[in-house]
Amino acid sequence: MNTPIDFYFDFTSPYGYLMSEKIDDLAARFERKVRWHPILLGVVFKVTGSHPPVTTPLKGPYILRDFQRSARFLGVPFRHPDCFPIPTQSACRAYYWLHERDCALSRRFAHAAYRALFVEGRDISAPETVVEIAAELGVTPVELTSALASTELRERLQAACNQAIERGVFGSPFVIIDDEPFFGVDRLPQIEQWLTTGGF
Amino acid sequence: MNTPIDFYFDFTSPYGYLMSEKIDDLAARFERKVRWHPILLGVVFKVTGSHPPVTTPLKGPYILRDFQRSARFLGVPFRHPDCFPIPTQSACRAYYWLHERDCALSRRFAHAAYRALFVEGRDISAPETVVEIAAELGVTPVELTSALASTELRERLQAACNQAIERGVFGSPFVIIDDEPFFGVDRLPQIEQWLTTGGF
Repeated sequence: MNTPIDFYFDFTSPYGYLMSEKIDDLAARFERKVRWHPILLGVVFKVTGSHPPVTTPLKGPYILRDFQRSARFLGVPFRHPDCFPIPTQSACRAYYWLHERDCALSRRFAHAAYRALFVEGRDISAPETVVEIAAELGVTPVELTSALASTELRERLQAACNQAIERGVFGSPFVIIDDEPFFGVDRLPQIEQWLTTGGF
Repeated sequence: MNTPIDFYFDFTSPYGYLMSEKIDDLAARFERKVRWHPILLGVVFKVTGSHPPVTTPLKGPYILRDFQRSARFLGVPFRHPDCFPIPTQSACRAYYWLHERDCALSRRFAHAAYRALFVEGRDISAPETVVEIAAELGVTPVELTSALASTELRERLQAACNQAIERGVFGSPFVIIDDEPFFGVDRLPQIEQWLTTGGF
């Protein structure tokens, strides 16, 4: 069995969303599984000294245009949300809580949360919205609501961010294949080439 | 006649170099000319508040690896120079001085300067090296040497940087096709699609 591919992302990252719609199918063509790792770019940016690119002069207006164009180029539905960027602690914590219970369900939740933000324009920073999205997938609201506030889950997310930083993750999306790192959804052609040839 | 494509770059930008080896041929397939505009990222970064990505924690080591991998992916010869990043005022000024005299020669000079840095590892920050590279193309050293120190040429480069900033350029390479901006050599597939379809 081939080593799984690691996929790091922040739920508020549009390029992360675009990658989330592509990476599983691409990996499957090469008989690879993908491990998803939602993280907080805010934690990563403390290490790199970076800021959300959308707040950077000149780059901000460009990137808003590029989100839309890249989505059209990749054939992924996308509508830029009014709420952006947003904190994604609750979405991440819900993901890890679900992941320990049902791996497949956590993947469906991640897709649903991303699409809620980038297709339906729902503000997934609110814990209530995150619980609502999970409930639509059959998760009991009361259990998840109480879990979201737990110290254990906070620490689980913090550990995920630290582990990402240790592996060199500095942005979203970030894909690691057999220790080879790829940053950005625009690395999809290189990822495909890498999977095809085993390195180049 | 189709509108020319604008190509902004800094001579110390590896991704700019990779684009320089691709953009003319790609444009020619769509009966487009390319106008080359060397600029100083240092001037642009004062507006954006950015720093050379190679100095950013976590991103720095990644990007050094990505330069090499992207070059292999695109089939462009590349050797990361010991001198990096470097100031490129002299190379830019020489380009604009040549451009006013002989457009085709300035293009050959730009290729030669880029390859001197990213294939041969020559330090093109030194005015003497820039003059040497131009001399290899038949340019009289004494004339160019005196031009490089002129106020007129300093102002010409400053104007080029200001014009780039006015058009929204925040990095290298930056390509503008009919007012549509594309940042990064990884936008080549989108550029090709844009040229094929007239927008998407």
